[in-house]
Amino acid sequence: MAQNVRSPGLGLLVFCILLYPAMTTAQQPASNLMPLPESAQYGTGSLAVDSSLSVVFTGYTEPRLERAAQRFLRQLAHQTGLPLSLKPSKTAKATLVIQTDHAGKEIQEVGEDESYILDVSTASARLRASTPLGTMHGLQTLLQLVDVSPGGFAAPVVTIQDRPRFPWRGLMIDSARHFLPLDVIRRNIDGMEAVKMNVFHWHLSENQGFRVESKKFPKLHELGSDALYYTQDEIRDLIAYARDRGIRVVPEFDMPGHSTAWFVGHPELASGKGPYEIERRWGIFEPAMDPTNERVYKFLDELIGEMAKVFPDHYFHIGGDEVNGREWDANPKIQAFMKVHGLKNNEALQAYFSGRVQKLVTKHGKAVVGWDEVLVAGVPRDVVIQSWRGQASLARAAKQGYRGILSNGYYLDLGWPAARHYAVDPMSGDAANLSAEEKQRILGGESCMWAEYVNPENVDSRIWPRNAAIAERLWSPQEVRDPASMYARLDFVSARLEWLGLTHRTVSRHMLQRLAGSASPAEFAALRTLADVIEPVKDYTREQTAPAEPTSATPMNRVVDAVPLESDAGRRFVEMVDQFVASACHDPASEARLRSQLTIWRDNDSILQPLAQRSFLVKEVAANSQDLSALGTMGLAALDSIATGQPAPDSWKAQQLAILEQIKKPKAQLLLIPAPAVQKLVEGVAAGGACSIAKP
Amino acid sequence: MAQNVRSPGLGLLVFCILLYPAMTTAQQPASNLMPLPESAQYGTGSLAVDSSLSVVFTGYTEPRLERAAQRFLRQLAHQTGLPLSLKPSKTAKATLVIQTDHAGKEIQEVGEDESYILDVSTASARLRASTPLGTMHGLQTLLQLVDVSPGGFAAPVVTIQDRPRFPWRGLMIDSARHFLPLDVIRRNIDGMEAVKMNVFHWHLSENQGFRVESKKFPKLHELGSDALYYTQDEIRDLIAYARDRGIRVVPEFDMPGHSTAWFVGHPELASGKGPYEIERRWGIFEPAMDPTNERVYKFLDELIGEMAKVFPDHYFHIGGDEVNGREWDANPKIQAFMKVHGLKNNEALQAYFSGRVQKLVTKHGKAVVGWDEVLVAGVPRDVVIQSWRGQASLARAAKQGYRGILSNGYYLDLGWPAARHYAVDPMSGDAANLSAEEKQRILGGESCMWAEYVNPENVDSRIWPRNAAIAERLWSPQEVRDPASMYARLDFVSARLEWLGLTHRTVSRHMLQRLAGSASPAEFAALRTLADVIEPVKDYTREQTAPAEPTSATPMNRVVDAVPLESDAGRRFVEMVDQFVASACHDPASEARLRSQLTIWRDNDSILQPLAQRSFLVKEVAANSQDLSALGTMGLAALDSIATGQPAPDSWKAQQLAILEQIKKPKAQLLLIPAPAVQKLVEGVAAGGACSIAKP
Repeated sequence: MAQNVRSPGLGLLVFCILLYPAMTTAQQPASNLMPLPESAQYGTGSLAVDSSLSVVFTGYTEPRLERAAQRFLRQLAHQTGLPLSLKPSKTAKATLVIQTDHAGKEIQEVGEDESYILDVSTASARLRASTPLGTMHGLQTLLQLVDVSPGGFAAPVVTIQDRPRFPWRGLMIDSARHFLPLDVIRRNIDGMEAVKMNVFHWHLSENQGFRVESKKFPKLHELGSDALYYTQDEIRDLIAYARDRGIRVVPEFDMPGHSTAWFVGHPELASGKGPYEIERRWGIFEPAMDPTNERVYKFLDELIGEMAKVFPDHYFHIGGDEVNGREWDANPKIQAFMKVHGLKNNEALQAYFSGRVQKLVTKHGKAVVGWDEVLVAGVPRDVVIQSWRGQASLARAAKQGYRGILSNGYYLDLGWPAARHYAVDPMSGDAANLSAEEKQRILGGESCMWAEYVNPENVDSRIWPRNAAIAERLWSPQEVRDPASMYARLDFVSARLEWLGLTHRTVSRHMLQRLAGSASPAEFAALRTLADVIEPVKDYTREQTAPAEPTSATPMNRVVDAVPLESDAGRRFVEMVDQFVASACHDPASEARLRSQLTIWRDNDSILQPLAQRSFLVKEVAANSQDLSALGTMGLAALDSIATGQPAPDSWKAQQLAILEQIKKPKAQLLLIPAPAVQKLVEGVAAGGACSIAKP
Repeated sequence: MAQNVRSPGLGLLVFCILLYPAMTTAQQPASNLMPLPESAQYGTGSLAVDSSLSVVFTGYTEPRLERAAQRFLRQLAHQTGLPLSLKPSKTAKATLVIQTDHAGKEIQEVGEDESYILDVSTASARLRASTPLGTMHGLQTLLQLVDVSPGGFAAPVVTIQDRPRFPWRGLMIDSARHFLPLDVIRRNIDGMEAVKMNVFHWHLSENQGFRVESKKFPKLHELGSDALYYTQDEIRDLIAYARDRGIRVVPEFDMPGHSTAWFVGHPELASGKGPYEIERRWGIFEPAMDPTNERVYKFLDELIGEMAKVFPDHYFHIGGDEVNGREWDANPKIQAFMKVHGLKNNEALQAYFSGRVQKLVTKHGKAVVGWDEVLVAGVPRDVVIQSWRGQASLARAAKQGYRGILSNGYYLDLGWPAARHYAVDPMSGDAANLSAEEKQRILGGESCMWAEYVNPENVDSRIWPRNAAIAERLWSPQEVRDPASMYARLDFVSARLEWLGLTHRTVSRHMLQRLAGSASPAEFAALRTLADVIEPVKDYTREQTAPAEPTSATPMNRVVDAVPLESDAGRRFVEMVDQFVASACHDPASEARLRSQLTIWRDNDSILQPLAQRSFLVKEVAANSQDLSALGTMGLAALDSIATGQPAPDSWKAQQLAILEQIKKPKAQLLLIPAPAVQKLVEGVAAGGACSIAKP
């Protein structure tokens, strides 16, 4: 699933964003909430939050809720620095009064009531919910409301009525391509709780590894994981950890393709001759299960039976994506089987396999989730289609009576800016034209973190903070779609997520320190100045531009591994230039800010180059650094030309655009984000540009 | 021990530093080593460090060494980003060949051989040591040698012969005043290992808490700790963790004073009537054990017996400091006892108590460590004196035949710059005049982290990186004392220490984010600009300037809790000004750098003030921010006056100095570090100043 998505071009993206009207938020004070609630009515004043804060449960309660209250208090202590008593209050005069109506399902279900009402007055806060799920969401909202104020820490007076737009709001993490230890998984689940996601989709098997202990077939993990796998006890603990946070865990065992690691211990399942080794490269490979072999179904029956007991969730993901069929084509026995059974092509053969596996899943009391490919004639109605192909495919499934979740547009590994993910809506495109009943079948979506280029060190920085924008898309009303508001809140949420143990911000500095070695403070600052405005190449360009074929043994210690996938500083510069050009370059304050930034860039390369001579990892970005300096020089020249009162000559413009063409090419697999904005400046000050009119 | 040390004045400090000649390092390449080894002969070329790196033991080995090698490989993987195999090699052709002669003592002893020889060639590294302690130190040295280079990661060709100058190199952590969870203790032990410290002195009981589970006297921890204590199992694990890193654990049970928390459960031990409560304030308090009560000795006999089994180290610290004697004065029974036994004063009474307790400690097979006060006539010769009073007291003890360790000058909580600690030498002052035999009795020193103003969140930032400078003082040859070299290496080591899990650098940003709330990026940057150049007040000024009496319930979420105790940016600015003034203000490059920095400061306050209006915690430093802007303006005016070619008028100088007097006063318990440097500029450009001569 990680390989073949084609993304819409950037032009289309910009178009989409502009189509969305900004949500009206004029009546509301600046909010830190993410996701934004269904409704919030702000009042006057605020509730003081100090060391005396207490919590009481007046309605239904259970140990999970008490743990949630403890977690709330610990997080609140962390985000205020106040010493708070963790003991639950016995009095209804507590600061926070929580009333939950009744228990939730023992095994959390799709579509359970997750709504809550949170009333904050100047005297207290009241949180009401039908189920513990709503209560837990409300606690996260209250945590986000508490902020520092002129008089101390406080939450604004507000009445929030909130419920999710979609019942399925997931994050998929691939811990098969690169193994991720449980502490990494746990802190990401903490992050999911903070932004009200409720499904952790755990991609557990791949060509590169089978990551679950099987007691029935121990060769699966013993020979297929390099000793990097989760024991069943660890998985049970993790599932309990997720349930405590209102999060379901859906396991994925990808088959019949993406399964080389299975065959190391069990070559008899494969369609080829074997022997097989754990795959070290990335891509789509030939090994696939043999759909014509009854032993395969007997094996899967036992394995699914075993795993169905380990994973209590009603849904069981069988993958089903990206089988290239070459092993099937090359196997005469399989070809003969297809002829006998009237299976015309590999798609039909895979449909046959899917049908058989789905029956096994059903037999063990579960419902199937699969990627688009599993949707073929005759699949049972309770299958859930996870669409990596797009809304059209989702809409088609809904029309046929199938439920679905959207992942196309939510692939975190493609390096898109948060705003681009944010603009993707499960109900847009073909889905917008569905009937009300059909729309009900679109359950939500899942962001996906495919793991070719992430490891335990940098995976947080590839998921967060962008995943919070997707979480908002899936929770908040459809009309919440102003990217400026999203980014303002995302910056705040991103800082808070680090307090949960996530490392998405700090890791970049640590990794840059590693590749800077014993740099002077000035050199390191120069490296950070460059790192702040470059982003890894997008979509699947990383494969295409790799200096050597990347494998699972390739070190991830380069600048491209260290910098965030979205540059905040780059985005802000682009905004600054847009505003300046929109003012016809007549705003002196903006001009001064731009000049200051451009000067820093112009001068940065001379500071960084000596370090590049000492570090092979900094050397790799020496050309990017020269490009940044060139951008600085060019931008300053554009600003200087404004002072002349005459448009810049065409020859100059042409020359600059030629240089920009070179600068915009990826180098060291990195893009220089301010380049298009500097181009706008150049075009703006040239004849016919927005700034070419003499000042008034 | 945390209250009453008087530090020498700053004038004396500067004098001491200047007395030390800089170590000659001209022949050596820039080194990242800290502590510097006894000898290092650098050659040509380097040893490449890549994924193929392997380790083999050819001599004595033991599980502890194998774990040390694993840890070495994990840390190396972390600091290079290379995937390294953690499996030990079987071949002598490994990259790193380790030969250890024999086992160390089962219970690590003072003065065990810790030496090692490390030979790095272009082909391999050989590490030889008598004992596992030397081997482990050598591994840390090799980790520090590996750095990024033009051709990849590499260690320089070098032969290092190394051994510690002192056998007792400790860090004391007070986890009694504020409890510190074990993960905090563990990561600090990791830091100690990295800088070759070998004693963790654990201050476990105080007026504010008794932090160890006692099975014989459970009321000690049950009533005396607010449920914040270490179980005996946890302590055993921690001791094993420290032993794995070549670190002894010396427990301290402070008596007869500093013991209020004991009396909550056991008022019968006290000299007053009770009842007693856990103390919440800081300072020296009246409660003290009753030295005249035989039940006290019976109790201590059993408790020391119990604890002697939990803590295997040969040394047992009984505190003994700061008894104010008021409970003794007020108790007629005690006064009568003193008369009968000819004890003339409270000092004599304490000596009587110490003598009795020392016998108990000896009875249980241990030797006593105590603060200066335990050194009274008749104490056994194997007592070790820990001097908080200074080298004179240490030298006096040595003359009398007692061994001692220095802590005066190494109090991390006093907020001194690393260079000031670094200049303190156990063998200076009176100790310099001791005979060779007497000098042998000075075992080393211990840095001390007293915990009135630290908690689990910020304690790392109060210990590190400055503790690494003290570690070097205690390990490296006495002539290693160039503060410039120390600071250059400290900066590098500080970054690497964070890779061990220490949070001394990142926590400051997290805490500033908390008090900045939803600040804009520009506002937050302005807060950091200010935070970068302020330091908490020094010595015991924090008590004296507190806005309200601080207690253990006082939140530590203010700017004074968030900023490092030593400002790197402040120190660099001071150096820059010194250089500039030394050039008679004739260096245009320095002038440009100063101007740029001063301009940022001048303009910073206007960005920060809106945030101060929204956050009570930022508001607290609004005056500091105005002062910084004033410094910027003043410094720029000084630079401007150079351009006139005339010295600045006396009236201007007088006016500026008056402003500086105000600026140098602590505000919000914070000092503005660049103030004296700006004063140098003002004085430099005024008539008679270093820069008052016209340019050549």
